[in-house]
Amino acid sequence: MGIPAYAAVDWGTSSFRLWLIGEDGSVLDERRSGEGMTTAASTGFPEVLQSHLAALSAPDDIPVIICGMAGARQGWVEAGYIDTPTSLSAILTGAVSVPGQKRDVRILPGLAQRSKEAPDVMRGEETQLLGAIAADAKGEQIVCMPGTHSKWVRVVDGAVTGFSTFMTGELFDVITRHSILSHAVAGADAMSADPDAFDAAVKAAFGQPALATSLIFGARAGQLLHGLTAAGAQARISGTLIGAEIAGALSSAGKEAAITLVASGRLQALYETAFRTLSLSYQTIDADAAVRRGLSAAAKAIWQNDERKSA
Amino acid sequence: MGIPAYAAVDWGTSSFRLWLIGEDGSVLDERRSGEGMTTAASTGFPEVLQSHLAALSAPDDIPVIICGMAGARQGWVEAGYIDTPTSLSAILTGAVSVPGQKRDVRILPGLAQRSKEAPDVMRGEETQLLGAIAADAKGEQIVCMPGTHSKWVRVVDGAVTGFSTFMTGELFDVITRHSILSHAVAGADAMSADPDAFDAAVKAAFGQPALATSLIFGARAGQLLHGLTAAGAQARISGTLIGAEIAGALSSAGKEAAITLVASGRLQALYETAFRTLSLSYQTIDADAAVRRGLSAAAKAIWQNDERKSA
Repeated sequence: MGIPAYAAVDWGTSSFRLWLIGEDGSVLDERRSGEGMTTAASTGFPEVLQSHLAALSAPDDIPVIICGMAGARQGWVEAGYIDTPTSLSAILTGAVSVPGQKRDVRILPGLAQRSKEAPDVMRGEETQLLGAIAADAKGEQIVCMPGTHSKWVRVVDGAVTGFSTFMTGELFDVITRHSILSHAVAGADAMSADPDAFDAAVKAAFGQPALATSLIFGARAGQLLHGLTAAGAQARISGTLIGAEIAGALSSAGKEAAITLVASGRLQALYETAFRTLSLSYQTIDADAAVRRGLSAAAKAIWQNDERKSA
Repeated sequence: MGIPAYAAVDWGTSSFRLWLIGEDGSVLDERRSGEGMTTAASTGFPEVLQSHLAALSAPDDIPVIICGMAGARQGWVEAGYIDTPTSLSAILTGAVSVPGQKRDVRILPGLAQRSKEAPDVMRGEETQLLGAIAADAKGEQIVCMPGTHSKWVRVVDGAVTGFSTFMTGELFDVITRHSILSHAVAGADAMSADPDAFDAAVKAAFGQPALATSLIFGARAGQLLHGLTAAGAQARISGTLIGAEIAGALSSAGKEAAITLVASGRLQALYETAFRTLSLSYQTIDADAAVRRGLSAAAKAIWQNDERKSA
């Protein structure tokens, strides 16, 4: 294994991921854990970081670049927000130094849209974005980053002009766990699938997004009247929320906008299926690779002309 | 107090309401409790009914007409569904007798919309509907019955042509209790009000219902960026869900359709405010009065030409 040049960390609300990156940009080693902001806020951010660096025998003076909720007000050190509209490269310059550390630790800022009508914020996705879109990209690009809180970002000629958060993942979770529809999906697990029910729900909600909260009730009525299965009910709820999300996200996009999906695993499969069902063209970028590329771009911008530890 | 001719019962999932009705249709006495279907399914439906009749010293042989979840599969005796499209009067003829009772007890059926795309069911609201709309009403009427599961019904020349359930009340509940937005509304209670935030949210969601799940996230972002209060966050979530519901419900209605709101209390005030904000004309009918009128119409149809206790 080569000598790591820096550590890159994606520190979310409930997850922690760390990569050791070599001088040539290659991934030398990695750690993943559930010690997200929520956990680290009580056990200590420096302690969590140190334990993972020590487990990988990283050099004591290795610099660390971090994105995500570690920079929130309730995180390690508040890293503020860059306001939209903004160039992507402004994110690179907004990093905050963590004081009192034996190594150079920087946390990247989030993005804020301060409109009164559509206030919105993101933390972590701006770094994925940085890794997904070339800074010199031309024309309008629509970037979809699905998750607990799906982010859709509009990028025009390399500048973020606006974005929207859809609570799709969290709504699916609270609806299937806490509403009357929990009975309709009982027995289905995350891997249960009913592709026909999913496709039909995506199409129906995309076509009539105003009916979304009515269409999901069909998961219950469908069981009472048509013997809809638990997997079918789950697919109907998921497809409805995703179809409505896509309709809303594209409602203000130009017809020629290219969709870039930044995702991996199960969410990647769900959104790719939805886009195909709706005959929307898209390209996919792996979410892990995107965040690492974004962190690497930030590390380069911060340290390439610096002495190490000169912060 | 006169001698009651019959008892009318609205037996919901979590509530029980009983009225003693005189020969002239007047309300002689009433009982309300939390012994809805969920409770009665374990303590016993006959026992719950008997305890309330005894508390009012009702005659032993008083006939009883019931609507609501007591007729569900998991209720007392399943009363089935009348399928749409249907005349309102068909509800009157679909009552099921409860066997083995010392008195004549009838449970009214629900309504079912058996379409594959938009399956839907109601139990209890069909009886409100019966009391809210004259059987000889002409033209198109849109009836809004807000609640945990809001029901919107289209009635044309006295016939139910279709209906939609919107999970508005339950979504508000699970979102404000179980999602990240629970922090945004912490400290606000059911009576907290921010009329401006409510109006703005109703308008925004009515105008762009596809953005509903994004607009509610603004309750969090608005707190982070603009110091939105807990009452403001609550109003934004409530207004967004109601505005999107109204947009969806009216998306298939004719421009000339008259809106009848069947509601009382806090929901009545919220929906009346929303209709006024959107410049929609409506008339309001008290929900309690409507269900009593519907039950009375059913009692008359069943017993007016019968001997008492002849079931």
